[in-house]
Amino acid sequence: MQKLIKNLIQENNAKIILVVLDGLGGLPVNGKTELESACTPTMDSLARNSACGLHLPVSMGITPGSGPAHLALFGYDPLEYQIGRGILEALGLGMDVKKTDVAIRCNYATIENGIIKDRRAGRIPSEESRKLTEKLQSNISRIDEAEILFAPGMEHRSAVLFRFPEPLAPDASAINDTDPQTEGVAPLKPVPGSQAAEQVVRIAGKFIIEVSRILKDEGKANYMLLRGFSIMPELTSFREAYGLNALAVANYPMYRGISKLVGMQAPAVDGDVMDEINFLKKNYVDYDFFFLHVKKPDSYGEDGDFDGKVLRIEEFDLLLPRILELKPDVLVITGDHSTPSLLKGHSWHPVPVLVNSPYVLGGGLCNAFSEKDCLKGELGIFRTVNLMPLALANAGRLKKFGA
Amino acid sequence: MQKLIKNLIQENNAKIILVVLDGLGGLPVNGKTELESACTPTMDSLARNSACGLHLPVSMGITPGSGPAHLALFGYDPLEYQIGRGILEALGLGMDVKKTDVAIRCNYATIENGIIKDRRAGRIPSEESRKLTEKLQSNISRIDEAEILFAPGMEHRSAVLFRFPEPLAPDASAINDTDPQTEGVAPLKPVPGSQAAEQVVRIAGKFIIEVSRILKDEGKANYMLLRGFSIMPELTSFREAYGLNALAVANYPMYRGISKLVGMQAPAVDGDVMDEINFLKKNYVDYDFFFLHVKKPDSYGEDGDFDGKVLRIEEFDLLLPRILELKPDVLVITGDHSTPSLLKGHSWHPVPVLVNSPYVLGGGLCNAFSEKDCLKGELGIFRTVNLMPLALANAGRLKKFGA
Repeated sequence: MQKLIKNLIQENNAKIILVVLDGLGGLPVNGKTELESACTPTMDSLARNSACGLHLPVSMGITPGSGPAHLALFGYDPLEYQIGRGILEALGLGMDVKKTDVAIRCNYATIENGIIKDRRAGRIPSEESRKLTEKLQSNISRIDEAEILFAPGMEHRSAVLFRFPEPLAPDASAINDTDPQTEGVAPLKPVPGSQAAEQVVRIAGKFIIEVSRILKDEGKANYMLLRGFSIMPELTSFREAYGLNALAVANYPMYRGISKLVGMQAPAVDGDVMDEINFLKKNYVDYDFFFLHVKKPDSYGEDGDFDGKVLRIEEFDLLLPRILELKPDVLVITGDHSTPSLLKGHSWHPVPVLVNSPYVLGGGLCNAFSEKDCLKGELGIFRTVNLMPLALANAGRLKKFGA
Repeated sequence: MQKLIKNLIQENNAKIILVVLDGLGGLPVNGKTELESACTPTMDSLARNSACGLHLPVSMGITPGSGPAHLALFGYDPLEYQIGRGILEALGLGMDVKKTDVAIRCNYATIENGIIKDRRAGRIPSEESRKLTEKLQSNISRIDEAEILFAPGMEHRSAVLFRFPEPLAPDASAINDTDPQTEGVAPLKPVPGSQAAEQVVRIAGKFIIEVSRILKDEGKANYMLLRGFSIMPELTSFREAYGLNALAVANYPMYRGISKLVGMQAPAVDGDVMDEINFLKKNYVDYDFFFLHVKKPDSYGEDGDFDGKVLRIEEFDLLLPRILELKPDVLVITGDHSTPSLLKGHSWHPVPVLVNSPYVLGGGLCNAFSEKDCLKGELGIFRTVNLMPLALANAGRLKKFGA
């Protein structure tokens, strides 16, 4: 499908804004979902004059992680392109991952006589993890041909990059986790699952020895388990796929990281949603596609805080007129997946979406922006991966297919 | 997709009941379908608080047989997995088909001087067919290495199994029908379409000679035409695919047979729907997935008996509270395909479905359980094969895809 789209691209000056309210979709508590409960006059008014519907990130019943959900929003089929766990962790910690890198999620762990006693090193405080990671970095900067880069995470978590001088084969990260997923046994040895992985395993073996030597006198965190060996997926850039000069505006590193995967510019943006919108406005003339990521609805959904999620949706609705002032040719407002407070986590439910442009049926098919109203919309229920072509079409950026 | 699902399975104690009202979907006569005409207060009430929609067994416009329709309900794409005619006939006659069997549908026929005079032997009474089949069985129990097993069917129909000592190659049943589909010509010779089929053709050739010898003095039924040579398809079991311990409750052998294909336990259940429900309740603690098959709506639909089909739907609705008493975590009520009385047969129309669990929008999107109300439901129109993943998700039995 993406190849078809690429052949139909025609460039123009139309601007597209894609607003992603992370975890937007919900489930009813006392009869109403978070989005139904929220007072959102601006989105409701938009919905009445937009093409509305619901999108399915992966497939019915499948709950997506943030990686697959965003790839789908960007038009990359998440069943075809998968982002490895190590890559996602490194992106989430703000590391600048390159095509020559193998990324690994690491857990500090406790080991005694070669046996894992605690896979999470007693969940050491993040501050201690930060110090240990700095200590490792100052002692290990290179192993053979690979540069070694550390980043501390929350509690016992961290990420490591092995940066090689040359790009790696796609199967170079086919390596098992050294974490046996259980305690009271020895850690596993990294074993190459392909010829290309042998080089990486050699580094990993030496890495484990070095790390163990440096950590050996630490109390709980005297070992490191390696998981999710992965390299950057090969993704056609937004520029090449859609002819779009794209800017990601996201205050969380993970979402900037995923945006960079598809070739968006994604400078660091600090602050809250208002700061993000100001940043978008300041850069509005320089790009033609804008991905604005609003994190908080998901965070509150994950916490099971129904009212908190409602407030964060309302907060965005209050700020939305500032985006409308820009008069984008196409404005898409949606989520990456559902995060019902009821479930305290991501879910499989389809996500409400509105596509605002002059070229929609609109006409009050939906009376508000909500899960139920979007069911009555002109877009029906569709796979998320189809959203980008629809946005491009509404922007006049797709030619006719065939004669 | 099934491979994806398999990787996401997480087991828990949640129980799923799938009720299949065979041939449920209908078409209006005097303005209302069978389901709209039926008084079904319990299903209507459930529909108001369930995720509703319509499912398409194969694809738009495609009328499914019972085999593909049930495979789709069980989550096996009917375009990928096909059950041979011989296998379906043997299962329908209650034969216990094994992986070492070649199954064949047989027609008693009338032959004169080597020319087929009547392909159906004048549709001899079932009783006569039963006697002839017994006669054949008592004379033929083995040909070379193959055990021969007969089962009588309705009128001129019967089924035969060639049971080999070893499992057969997937293409071992690539053999043409000996039925030329026309009268006044000689029957066709069985010809192997693959190397693996040569062994089966050798048995078939001897089988035809033996059968002709034994039947030669019968009046009409003095020959047997062989059709639909087939072996058991290779299907991942429910246990392996979904981690489910599944029980089929069906009073018709064919549906027990299809259930066994996917590794469900399917003991014989006699009696009516009430007996089936009692059987389900008695076994409720021992399984976590229950397929309850209700045959009659389809039978009446096939007969063009609109009122009869309405009554059978109403009858189920009266018994439904007995199932609700079990408080299953997920209850799915649907059909395998539509059988409109108007068409006196299966049809291509999508089938109403309700999925009841705590994790649905519900909220009165549908006011009743009917074809038209289900169109307003949160599930939209979707391929049947997606129903199992959705049921698993609602049961909390699927992990997140990607991070």
